[in-house]
Amino acid sequence: MSHNTFGHLFRVTTWGESHGPAIGCVVDGCPPGLALSEADIQPFLDRRKPGTSSFTTQRKEPDAVRILSGVFEGKTTGTPVSLLIENTDQRSRDYGDIAQTYRPGHADLTYDLKYGIRDYRGGGRSSARETAMRVAAGAVARRILGEQVRIRAALIQLGPHKIDRSGWDWSEVNNNPFFSPDASVVPAWEEYLTTIRKNGLSAGAVIEVVAENVPAGLGAPIYGKLDSDLAAAFMSINAVKGVEIGDGFASAALTGVENADPLFMRDGQIAFGANHAGGILGGISTGQPVVARFAVKPTSSMLTPVPSVTSDGVEKEVITKGRHDPCVGIRAVPVGEAMMACVLADHLLRHRGQTGR
Amino acid sequence: MSHNTFGHLFRVTTWGESHGPAIGCVVDGCPPGLALSEADIQPFLDRRKPGTSSFTTQRKEPDAVRILSGVFEGKTTGTPVSLLIENTDQRSRDYGDIAQTYRPGHADLTYDLKYGIRDYRGGGRSSARETAMRVAAGAVARRILGEQVRIRAALIQLGPHKIDRSGWDWSEVNNNPFFSPDASVVPAWEEYLTTIRKNGLSAGAVIEVVAENVPAGLGAPIYGKLDSDLAAAFMSINAVKGVEIGDGFASAALTGVENADPLFMRDGQIAFGANHAGGILGGISTGQPVVARFAVKPTSSMLTPVPSVTSDGVEKEVITKGRHDPCVGIRAVPVGEAMMACVLADHLLRHRGQTGR
Amino acid sequence: MSHNTFGHLFRVTTWGESHGPAIGCVVDGCPPGLALSEADIQPFLDRRKPGTSSFTTQRKEPDAVRILSGVFEGKTTGTPVSLLIENTDQRSRDYGDIAQTYRPGHADLTYDLKYGIRDYRGGGRSSARETAMRVAAGAVARRILGEQVRIRAALIQLGPHKIDRSGWDWSEVNNNPFFSPDASVVPAWEEYLTTIRKNGLSAGAVIEVVAENVPAGLGAPIYGKLDSDLAAAFMSINAVKGVEIGDGFASAALTGVENADPLFMRDGQIAFGANHAGGILGGISTGQPVVARFAVKPTSSMLTPVPSVTSDGVEKEVITKGRHDPCVGIRAVPVGEAMMACVLADHLLRHRGQTGR
Amino acid sequence: MSHNTFGHLFRVTTWGESHGPAIGCVVDGCPPGLALSEADIQPFLDRRKPGTSSFTTQRKEPDAVRILSGVFEGKTTGTPVSLLIENTDQRSRDYGDIAQTYRPGHADLTYDLKYGIRDYRGGGRSSARETAMRVAAGAVARRILGEQVRIRAALIQLGPHKIDRSGWDWSEVNNNPFFSPDASVVPAWEEYLTTIRKNGLSAGAVIEVVAENVPAGLGAPIYGKLDSDLAAAFMSINAVKGVEIGDGFASAALTGVENADPLFMRDGQIAFGANHAGGILGGISTGQPVVARFAVKPTSSMLTPVPSVTSDGVEKEVITKGRHDPCVGIRAVPVGEAMMACVLADHLLRHRGQTGR
Repeated sequence: MSHNTFGHLFRVTTWGESHGPAIGCVVDGCPPGLALSEADIQPFLDRRKPGTSSFTTQRKEPDAVRILSGVFEGKTTGTPVSLLIENTDQRSRDYGDIAQTYRPGHADLTYDLKYGIRDYRGGGRSSARETAMRVAAGAVARRILGEQVRIRAALIQLGPHKIDRSGWDWSEVNNNPFFSPDASVVPAWEEYLTTIRKNGLSAGAVIEVVAENVPAGLGAPIYGKLDSDLAAAFMSINAVKGVEIGDGFASAALTGVENADPLFMRDGQIAFGANHAGGILGGISTGQPVVARFAVKPTSSMLTPVPSVTSDGVEKEVITKGRHDPCVGIRAVPVGEAMMACVLADHLLRHRGQTGR
Repeated sequence: MSHNTFGHLFRVTTWGESHGPAIGCVVDGCPPGLALSEADIQPFLDRRKPGTSSFTTQRKEPDAVRILSGVFEGKTTGTPVSLLIENTDQRSRDYGDIAQTYRPGHADLTYDLKYGIRDYRGGGRSSARETAMRVAAGAVARRILGEQVRIRAALIQLGPHKIDRSGWDWSEVNNNPFFSPDASVVPAWEEYLTTIRKNGLSAGAVIEVVAENVPAGLGAPIYGKLDSDLAAAFMSINAVKGVEIGDGFASAALTGVENADPLFMRDGQIAFGANHAGGILGGISTGQPVVARFAVKPTSSMLTPVPSVTSDGVEKEVITKGRHDPCVGIRAVPVGEAMMACVLADHLLRHRGQTGR
Repeated sequence: MSHNTFGHLFRVTTWGESHGPAIGCVVDGCPPGLALSEADIQPFLDRRKPGTSSFTTQRKEPDAVRILSGVFEGKTTGTPVSLLIENTDQRSRDYGDIAQTYRPGHADLTYDLKYGIRDYRGGGRSSARETAMRVAAGAVARRILGEQVRIRAALIQLGPHKIDRSGWDWSEVNNNPFFSPDASVVPAWEEYLTTIRKNGLSAGAVIEVVAENVPAGLGAPIYGKLDSDLAAAFMSINAVKGVEIGDGFASAALTGVENADPLFMRDGQIAFGANHAGGILGGISTGQPVVARFAVKPTSSMLTPVPSVTSDGVEKEVITKGRHDPCVGIRAVPVGEAMMACVLADHLLRHRGQTGR
Repeated sequence: MSHNTFGHLFRVTTWGESHGPAIGCVVDGCPPGLALSEADIQPFLDRRKPGTSSFTTQRKEPDAVRILSGVFEGKTTGTPVSLLIENTDQRSRDYGDIAQTYRPGHADLTYDLKYGIRDYRGGGRSSARETAMRVAAGAVARRILGEQVRIRAALIQLGPHKIDRSGWDWSEVNNNPFFSPDASVVPAWEEYLTTIRKNGLSAGAVIEVVAENVPAGLGAPIYGKLDSDLAAAFMSINAVKGVEIGDGFASAALTGVENADPLFMRDGQIAFGANHAGGILGGISTGQPVVARFAVKPTSSMLTPVPSVTSDGVEKEVITKGRHDPCVGIRAVPVGEAMMACVLADHLLRHRGQTGR
């Protein structure tokens, strides 16, 4: 990963600011001959689109994607696929406060410290709007992985409230505005987030991403391990502060026997007695489901005032008016799926390149 | 990160297997004119060296490092620094069990699945012995960072037992065989790990790494974020299953106000009221201490039998005799420091390249 | 260089096909705070623009560039600069011939061999139209290099007709449709190329690129040598078949004494008695002018029939109707300048990153 | 290509100085399961070895290569192959002259300008001794390409004397100390180079490299074109000043019809009427022989005095005593083969990765 590009053979470069004329990405290294149209990408963007419930920002963006290159007569040609989304709802308003005063916990400060200049309109490049392009690229990655690889994500914790994992039902995920796989937690989440929103606060979340039917052998040790690349991919998402694979931090408390995933033979195939490893051993996929989680902190854009300073070095409380998600973790669910898809697609090509399989 | 190389301007390539003639690394992109000798590197290797207490493997390796290139008359020349450590204690013994039977939870299986061949002697390339070269490279990285950047790590959890953070004392870290910053927890850890070892089990751990006086502005958003690269770096260490920055997973339960690090002016400088962010915002260092944690699972090499299969597809319980660490997390402490140093050094050069500062 | 991206710290990714809706590029790693607007880029594109004389293709493209990101209030922000040019003159016509039959000497054949699919409209991705984006990126690179670094190119051979080097006058370059620095050769070139065009043929050319006031020290041996990166950059331009630095192939016939550039002291500075080396020694710039040449073959798109085969394996003569340059080398002059600028800018940042100078 | 590493999936990192304890390389990304031993590599090194005739340096280096990793039970494992050659004949002598005074035309000067420090012993890192590791890596690359891909090189010009191409006979190449494919030119070359050597001069040369039976489809346009990567690879060899593919610079003088390689059908396969293109179109291999040439300048290490300056800024004539090749181009012949092999191997893996073929 480097600058604004990630991936090695399947490479994604994103560009664009929250309130510029457009955002976009270039997906390079895509195999030729894959069926691809805007209609294959748009549904994934629609899941991440703002303004779909009272629990996400009210900014109205159709997020209509255009394919500008790399596809001919409905098929990828092997050349770069350029994707573009126009920004249509850059509300003309006063950014004065944010322009001069840093939101504590926000990249406002560090972009200035690093570059000595920043596009303060809506967070500029540091805006989560950038993640739309990851979702678009993820849709292309899914074409490479094929239909048998199934990638799904869900919200498993909202603020301090966790789901009941015994009630996990993937079919519930799209039935509520939180992408919860557990229907029973939804009322509590609604109440919690409504309170957060009314009080001008924001909330964190934890997302779990699961990829099933991933071929064994993906991952390039030592420094291109599958879990290492996934960790980088998820940590690069706005507001993410932690990443786990399989049992993650909980595995530190286990003994080796408790943590081992025993091996058996079933119908001539290796089978596993558990999946503490989250489908990855030694940085290489085992063939079991790849399981990852990442934690999203509460956004720093809130209506509640926080002590801060201006770029001129004057202390001043700051409030973020604008339109913001009370919990940016919710819309990170499709982003997590997309990053999983991109990393897996890259490793599929890399593995094929090195081993011919 | 790609294959066996990591870093962009400060690049480290490692090679070697646990029981081959030697292990080594090439450190490329090092600035010229830095004082460097074996004596600058060896102390860091000695901290990671096996056989220093009853709580680490009894393999005896002096781990004496040699500089083979890139240094002239005591100074780096800007050309690649090649470092080499000979393997001296490759005990001649029967690897039969491990050669044919996979350790559940170990890379044994996945190397075979990926490559169709593996060097089973001591884990081959997947052995944690590789991390010695990270430590050596980290010593070079520290030269780039200079004396004012202080990087330290400590074990903060062993098995289920966490330290008491109120008793944190950095000066204690080298006073006990666990790198604990809290002296009060040491007796409990000794007892716990002795029991684990006697029962032929293994234990996990959590390591915390702190870098102080890191210049603000390091990190290259969006896909070269400092935290993203740190996540990849730590996750690439053997047996690591989770990485956190700052408050990490705990931040998901906080509100935006609780999680915000308020800003003040102190002596004409921006000061922070807290460091929930772990010194990184928007993927860029703030100037506050960079704080990261990673979880290490219990090793799969144990004397306790676990159900497994052979490479021929026969079910068979497996025991790992050999010499192994009951808790690989302990020796991961200096490795964590080294990876922090390498990532920071790389970003220091990258930041200087782009901005001239 | 990899796929559709080149550069290490200053990175350019291009995308787009000759007859798609648009072409574009993403310029990543640009230092912050540089003044940049469309008006800084357009003049360079206008020099490369088709349809400016009877000696270039009659396709009418305004090649109006738009900056979509990375610039705020007239200055670069350090984030990716996305540039886009719409294709406006994709003439609706029958590509039937070229769609089915390969032009001998053209990428038609190899794109099909590699990808099994190709966008045959105007050459698709293999069209020299892609070089417009190199020119745009080169304009950004010039901002990094600053005004003191002067990069100029000229046509020094058209078909078999070379310029008289003793008549070299940079101010003549923009006074004739060939970018010739020697006014005396222009009538002969006009006559030659008119005959070529009337006979439905095409002609080759040689371009010389000179960069003055390049700081000493640029280039990263061994595999990021300045001349090595320049060779790759020029060879990647459409139809280029050879690259030279300094005396190039002629140096093979010299003795060491004839080829040496003697060193003297002049006003306390090192001065050179000659510049056989073309400003590069050991892959590093000396401070002398960097001098490179590249040869462009005659294009394979001609009105003269050539024996060929169809994609169905049937022998069939092929003629390229459409609108084509009789000598693609002419418009390669600004492209050569742009590639020089991009490579130098990248190495300026890389050198600064490693050495701090 | 970047720093001291080249290649994308098949990656070679070299390290070491002329007079350090050893030189070496790390070959990463090698497919698993290939038979490989020192005996597969040594013969190629022996061809490049110094001291084999009066026309090469009299330094005596056995150049015995050792494989330190990545091979288990005679087969590659997919992990990094570390190769090492000890320097044994670092003659203890006075480098005083070269240490303080720059050889005009040598990297002496530029290494100092770039790094402010240099290992002057034998040229340090800029020594052609580094190319031994390219030859070693090339031997590994040949394993990937398989026996059907035949890569051969020859010297086609020594000083001003070109071979008679009508007398080309590959079997002659190893029958003379110049790697000439034309036996008839050998006496003239012997006389010429003897005179050069006796007069304390040095001579340039041109090398041609031909790869036969290269699969069609290799090369990754636009910036990973096969010819672009070859140009970088050859230009990175010490003292190289020019690179050509196919007809190269001569193609600039041809018309499009003369330069076209007509296509025919032969036995159901596409056949070519000529190979002006040197086996590459649009940056992608055609299946025809890949033909490249590169020019090597006369070395700057001579017994003839040349005006120069010291590092203290004093004018002083310089003579290079030491042991040097009168024509470094001769030993560049096996180096050229090796670079061709490495580039092709990398593109074979890349092509397979992207397309699955």
